[in-house]
Amino acid sequence: MPSLITLLTDFGTADGYVAEIKGVLYSLAPGATVVDLTHEVPPHDTELARLAVARFWRRFPVHTVHLVVVDPGVGTSRAAVAVQSDGRYLVGPDNGVLSPALLLGDAQVVRLPVSPNAARTFHGRDVFAPAAAALANGATLASLGTAHDAPIVRRTREPVKRDDGAILGEVIAIDRFGNAITNLIGVRAGVVAAAGRPIAVRATYADVAAGQPVALVGSSGLLEVAVRDGSAASQLGLERGAVVVWYRSTQA
Amino acid sequence: MPSLITLLTDFGTADGYVAEIKGVLYSLAPGATVVDLTHEVPPHDTELARLAVARFWRRFPVHTVHLVVVDPGVGTSRAAVAVQSDGRYLVGPDNGVLSPALLLGDAQVVRLPVSPNAARTFHGRDVFAPAAAALANGATLASLGTAHDAPIVRRTREPVKRDDGAILGEVIAIDRFGNAITNLIGVRAGVVAAAGRPIAVRATYADVAAGQPVALVGSSGLLEVAVRDGSAASQLGLERGAVVVWYRSTQA
Amino acid sequence: MPSLITLLTDFGTADGYVAEIKGVLYSLAPGATVVDLTHEVPPHDTELARLAVARFWRRFPVHTVHLVVVDPGVGTSRAAVAVQSDGRYLVGPDNGVLSPALLLGDAQVVRLPVSPNAARTFHGRDVFAPAAAALANGATLASLGTAHDAPIVRRTREPVKRDDGAILGEVIAIDRFGNAITNLIGVRAGVVAAAGRPIAVRATYADVAAGQPVALVGSSGLLEVAVRDGSAASQLGLERGAVVVWYRSTQA
Repeated sequence: MPSLITLLTDFGTADGYVAEIKGVLYSLAPGATVVDLTHEVPPHDTELARLAVARFWRRFPVHTVHLVVVDPGVGTSRAAVAVQSDGRYLVGPDNGVLSPALLLGDAQVVRLPVSPNAARTFHGRDVFAPAAAALANGATLASLGTAHDAPIVRRTREPVKRDDGAILGEVIAIDRFGNAITNLIGVRAGVVAAAGRPIAVRATYADVAAGQPVALVGSSGLLEVAVRDGSAASQLGLERGAVVVWYRSTQA
Repeated sequence: MPSLITLLTDFGTADGYVAEIKGVLYSLAPGATVVDLTHEVPPHDTELARLAVARFWRRFPVHTVHLVVVDPGVGTSRAAVAVQSDGRYLVGPDNGVLSPALLLGDAQVVRLPVSPNAARTFHGRDVFAPAAAALANGATLASLGTAHDAPIVRRTREPVKRDDGAILGEVIAIDRFGNAITNLIGVRAGVVAAAGRPIAVRATYADVAAGQPVALVGSSGLLEVAVRDGSAASQLGLERGAVVVWYRSTQA
Repeated sequence: MPSLITLLTDFGTADGYVAEIKGVLYSLAPGATVVDLTHEVPPHDTELARLAVARFWRRFPVHTVHLVVVDPGVGTSRAAVAVQSDGRYLVGPDNGVLSPALLLGDAQVVRLPVSPNAARTFHGRDVFAPAAAALANGATLASLGTAHDAPIVRRTREPVKRDDGAILGEVIAIDRFGNAITNLIGVRAGVVAAAGRPIAVRATYADVAAGQPVALVGSSGLLEVAVRDGSAASQLGLERGAVVVWYRSTQA
């Protein structure tokens, strides 16, 4: 099987930056399969990138190389790194976007050297892509750089349990459908207060009528607030950071 | 040749859902070639998805597997299906998006089982992608599920012929260029009334001056209303559902 | 190694036009690898397409076929062409988008025949894709058409040197981050006047505080005006065509 190199960036595609990265990858790793994951992360939104990485990084086969370039600090002293974790590789800036892979005990991290010839505004092309190509070609992690201790790890804020049994959480992302993804996990019943109203936790969108709000466990196990055939974000006014409170029952 | 699996969704790419689907496909069908067609169908727009499927599904080689996930009814009782038609396979919800392949006499349809472990909000990842991977790996349609009679078939509304010989049609899609695609087919001359004005049917955009409206036969045989170097949608106020009437001549 | 066919269009993806092109490519060149570069060039923006082509066309391996379809003149008498330059191939309309490859001394150009069966609004599918597939399959350039003399070549306007040593340039593109890319090249120090204010040329974004403007040499060697952690386009009001003037020093 050819090696897989996946791409996640915030570059959009129209400007040609992603095309340049692909040119480098196909030139340096001609046998690899390059897979677009997204180039539409909002500019510099490392938090949304991190949440996306959490979703997909282990769904790919062992040996996959994930190239993750959301890099507002390019050209600063932030480290460029490569990670080996659970048999996959990840390459990108040391700014938290690779955190999901760093949380595993076996994760190893090296700091990539930055050539003086690398464009200081485009490490995606000149630093990260060559490292990803090398890994796809079979290079070991250790051959790419020196051990990098204490990489930056960002975590989703933990929900807070209150004395009355309620749990205080928040909206961590709004998806394309306007669903508000929260940091509440392991919730299968009860009610959430969001946008100033109680919303029952149900099994799926279809458990309420069109246009009605519903809370349900999303595909990654997190509770989300949705509006059937509508947008929770625009119809309920929910945005990232909005507080949601879970109660065991409407009586709570 | 490796098997082809194409992807059409309304997920956008930024949230990572498409990345999850790709992880499943590359894990379960490592020898397949995965081809993005679009992830930018407007959310839940099954009608636009159906029209896109009509354009491309038979342009791909025999044995191609088309994965079509525009699925507002996910988690309801709507069936998950796989279709074999004219040598190609299609996998998706039974909500009309696969209609172009169902109109052929030889089409066969099976209902896919839905595991209780499948996320009720993400059959794209947990039901459709595994079925597409199995087909790419050579599984037979019959091995994937049980015969599904009377799948939902949507058709573009037929134009209506009036007593005076005029034909009443409508705009069925607006494309990225603002061209208004109609349901009128087989028209090579005459005039259409659209947005309250007569527009002559010509051979191509260049038959009128820049900024002028023109009607012409588009690349799939349907009459479309365009503005040269402009947008018929915004400049003429045309939108989906707008009435267009064809006359044999301006005298009609 | 399989042949590479890259795709750059202004079609977006939702309407299914790109899907049709891919169907043609995979049918006619089943062994090729098809690579999306972008479909998000603004409609009919041949200038932005040209600048993107300049960025990427030589970063891909020799023998790559670049399919470039930004074609406002489709259906007019503009030529459909294929180009061989520096070992790569490019296929598209003769409207300037292929200019970067035409500037090399060894470039060869042929005019592609247009079948009367080709849709007059969609040469991407019916003329350019089949030619790209043929090249990917090993056809020679000469076998595809007849020599085409004097293809249209567009160039970025040259900066103008003033008597006082200052250099007059302009903004030629705004990228997704709001960076204003100029036509000034070979500038490593000094100051630029842009949007009515002097902005020092520095090495990278991080040489100024967040929210501050900075001028720096971008990844393709052109001077660009940026705002750290912000958008030069929206915060400074810069747009394509805006004048920028370079001075050796603030005293100049």
